[in-house]
Amino acid sequence: MRVKYMNNNTFVIFGGTGDLTQRKLMPALYNLIKEGSLPKGFAVVSIGRRDLTREAYLDQIQTSIKTFSRYPFEEKIWDELKNLIYYKQMDFTNFAEYEKLKEFLDFVDIKHHTKGNHIYYLAVAPEFFDVIVDNLAKANLNAQNGKFSRVMIEKPFGRNLQSAIYLNQKIIQAFGEENTYRIDHYLGKEMLQNIMVIRFANSLFEPVWNKDYIEQVQITSSETIGIGTRGSYYENAGAIRDMVQSHLLQLLSLIAMERPKDLSPNSVRDEKVKVLQKLKPTSKAEIKKNIVRGQYKSYRSEPNVSTTSTTETFVALKLEVDTPRWKNVPFYIRTGKKLPRKAIEIIIQFKQPEKMLYDNLTSIPNMLIIKVQPQEGVFFVFNAKKPGTKNTIIPVQMDFCQNCDVGINTPEAYERLLLDAFNGDSTLFARWDEVLYSWKFIDAIIESWQDDEVNFPNYEDGTYGPIEANELLAKDGKEWINLED
Amino acid sequence: MRVKYMNNNTFVIFGGTGDLTQRKLMPALYNLIKEGSLPKGFAVVSIGRRDLTREAYLDQIQTSIKTFSRYPFEEKIWDELKNLIYYKQMDFTNFAEYEKLKEFLDFVDIKHHTKGNHIYYLAVAPEFFDVIVDNLAKANLNAQNGKFSRVMIEKPFGRNLQSAIYLNQKIIQAFGEENTYRIDHYLGKEMLQNIMVIRFANSLFEPVWNKDYIEQVQITSSETIGIGTRGSYYENAGAIRDMVQSHLLQLLSLIAMERPKDLSPNSVRDEKVKVLQKLKPTSKAEIKKNIVRGQYKSYRSEPNVSTTSTTETFVALKLEVDTPRWKNVPFYIRTGKKLPRKAIEIIIQFKQPEKMLYDNLTSIPNMLIIKVQPQEGVFFVFNAKKPGTKNTIIPVQMDFCQNCDVGINTPEAYERLLLDAFNGDSTLFARWDEVLYSWKFIDAIIESWQDDEVNFPNYEDGTYGPIEANELLAKDGKEWINLED
Repeated sequence: MRVKYMNNNTFVIFGGTGDLTQRKLMPALYNLIKEGSLPKGFAVVSIGRRDLTREAYLDQIQTSIKTFSRYPFEEKIWDELKNLIYYKQMDFTNFAEYEKLKEFLDFVDIKHHTKGNHIYYLAVAPEFFDVIVDNLAKANLNAQNGKFSRVMIEKPFGRNLQSAIYLNQKIIQAFGEENTYRIDHYLGKEMLQNIMVIRFANSLFEPVWNKDYIEQVQITSSETIGIGTRGSYYENAGAIRDMVQSHLLQLLSLIAMERPKDLSPNSVRDEKVKVLQKLKPTSKAEIKKNIVRGQYKSYRSEPNVSTTSTTETFVALKLEVDTPRWKNVPFYIRTGKKLPRKAIEIIIQFKQPEKMLYDNLTSIPNMLIIKVQPQEGVFFVFNAKKPGTKNTIIPVQMDFCQNCDVGINTPEAYERLLLDAFNGDSTLFARWDEVLYSWKFIDAIIESWQDDEVNFPNYEDGTYGPIEANELLAKDGKEWINLED
Repeated sequence: MRVKYMNNNTFVIFGGTGDLTQRKLMPALYNLIKEGSLPKGFAVVSIGRRDLTREAYLDQIQTSIKTFSRYPFEEKIWDELKNLIYYKQMDFTNFAEYEKLKEFLDFVDIKHHTKGNHIYYLAVAPEFFDVIVDNLAKANLNAQNGKFSRVMIEKPFGRNLQSAIYLNQKIIQAFGEENTYRIDHYLGKEMLQNIMVIRFANSLFEPVWNKDYIEQVQITSSETIGIGTRGSYYENAGAIRDMVQSHLLQLLSLIAMERPKDLSPNSVRDEKVKVLQKLKPTSKAEIKKNIVRGQYKSYRSEPNVSTTSTTETFVALKLEVDTPRWKNVPFYIRTGKKLPRKAIEIIIQFKQPEKMLYDNLTSIPNMLIIKVQPQEGVFFVFNAKKPGTKNTIIPVQMDFCQNCDVGINTPEAYERLLLDAFNGDSTLFARWDEVLYSWKFIDAIIESWQDDEVNFPNYEDGTYGPIEANELLAKDGKEWINLED
């Protein structure tokens, strides 16, 4: 499955002066050079609205790399990268400038042997996605004649089903589904890719990966920070669009999917889509019962946030995957800002053994814990005999700490995703129908919320969300499992 | 299940000057005092043939404790213990002396409030078992009227089925099965007791604990030392009597048994016996094919060993447990002296997943490794994705190291077994039918060997036995899994 060569291309970034480019894209390219992983023929054309000389722009990027790269700064590597980077000022709503861009790309293509292959990365606000795509098509910059033109799009892909459909039509028309790389940077994370290996390359887990043996699944994505300076974006998104629609439903579908017939991108995504199609709750009454919203106390005082905002910064959901494998197994999901810990964790809790021999003793259920962030690893909690006692059971933990083993240099999600896009491998990107069914599910929730008043804010900064999130599980006789670092 | 009180008793050791008493029994009693685990009314009467004063005997014991106790020597604890110890010289083949013993025990019973309860520990050569038991009965020292008289017997329990039956009849007649404690000190080991907890207090293992998921089981008990000064005993025993008949078949039956209906001693032993009854090979042809003997090069030069000895110091067996659970699952067992490592280990190797998605990649089978000695712990080897690669699989290891967690002070097997005998709990002792079926199985092997010539010695000191042991598995397309420390 490892692709042996990489495809030369010019990497065109719309939004070259923005946060994402500085913090993630440029450091990722720097690290790819360091590891010898960039294509032979390669160049970067960074597009921004600001009037900057190439030198001034490179100074900015150098600072970014020094600040954000996982490998330390080395003059030699930077020299190599900076010679590949161009800065182009343009107003990307103005078609005329795309003609000039075309000429410039022709020049770069020849100079850097990039074979006329282009990858457009849209690191701009979502409202510009359609105009950029339109203009690229109009300027014939989407051509596929013997070369490739791909487009990479950051989330959010639309802000609801309708806008996602509109955006998708634009893109597909211009580039085709096979050239569209919808980024969910969670999918680039090591442990997410590891979930499939854990499930399907080990014989011990798959036989018990179902309703007969699993009691519940809990997925937590918690942040300690608030929304910071992202108030205007966040007011329009909220936790459900920002985290659940994309990241957490992706995570859930990897855990819940059936075995794909092979490892090709489409086989894997076929199975993930089936999970998204079978998600509950979908009715208004079920949504009211199974989903809890929250807002942290100080949210309304954040910059660019309305003092009467009803945007949720926390959401907890009890989901069901309505397939034979998962019948009646609750999937509890929560995400929020200003929580006590920063972590992304999946807990698979197994049932207690039937007719438990040791039932008069304290034992805990078996748990498989997949830690995605900040620590990466797999933990297994099981019961053993307490040494020196007769039949006292104690929970013990086995752990495989992935980033402890290999040091801190696990490849960042963006490095993996850029490399895959260069290679034309779309496994780790969301296919349109994944986005479609995610939005369908999320839209029903958002619509149902519109009729309900909420009493916000409803949780203290630094706590695990509103009391209702605990009650959601208490009704089922369960509680959230809060791990420690 | 934990018994709340302990039964006062006088602990009578036949063989009070012997190795076992010095190395194991006395240090165990010392440690039990240290942990506050001895019964309130308690005394030790040590019987030996040598003419020793109590003081001289106590001096010996003090030295033993200083040398062999797992807790460091403390004057205070020793003072407590030494006041409980008496030494009695007697010829235990002479009935007249049992009358005197009886009087002495009466005196001790009153002085130490031991309520007339006696536990006789036979730490003598097996040929004295029957005469001691006979004489105890004749002197009415086996009485159970409102008090208890128990007998504890070290292995070997007989040297074949016939002698075991003879010995057993003697003992049962005198004491009854319920007062007979047949010691297999392996059963006192923490990890052996833990096997049941691992299997039955965790929901993840039992569903896959069968032929559908398990490829093979390997049990290794290896020693680096030779037979040392035990030549005369060992020449009559050999590896199969010394290790397989007792320890290794006990270990196997814990791994292979069905779930007992409860944790009572008899329910557990009922299931263990069923395994022993279903063991193969039993026919001569099968034995020839599935069992390999070995003798280390320097064995014939050891003291008290014949220069033409055909005693085996190594044995490797391919066994089958002929039950629906284990149909066609090979159990490979080996034990030997002068091997490269000192260890007792059980490896449960799972099958590769059916229709393995990652079959073009290097992956290893899942393995559950139970380490019994010298390190105690559970290890689980499974496959994960190699960080930074596409789909490269690497084996990773989860481990729960039991004696790392609790320090080195895991209770020694003898402490556990003595305490259980004081409390009348026979779970960890072998029931007669366990001994019976073990001997039945072993007798068939020994008989079949008598007709076959062997070419001994056949393995170099410090190697993993003769080449035939490897060929035994190679025929099945397998090999011995040699772990590292």
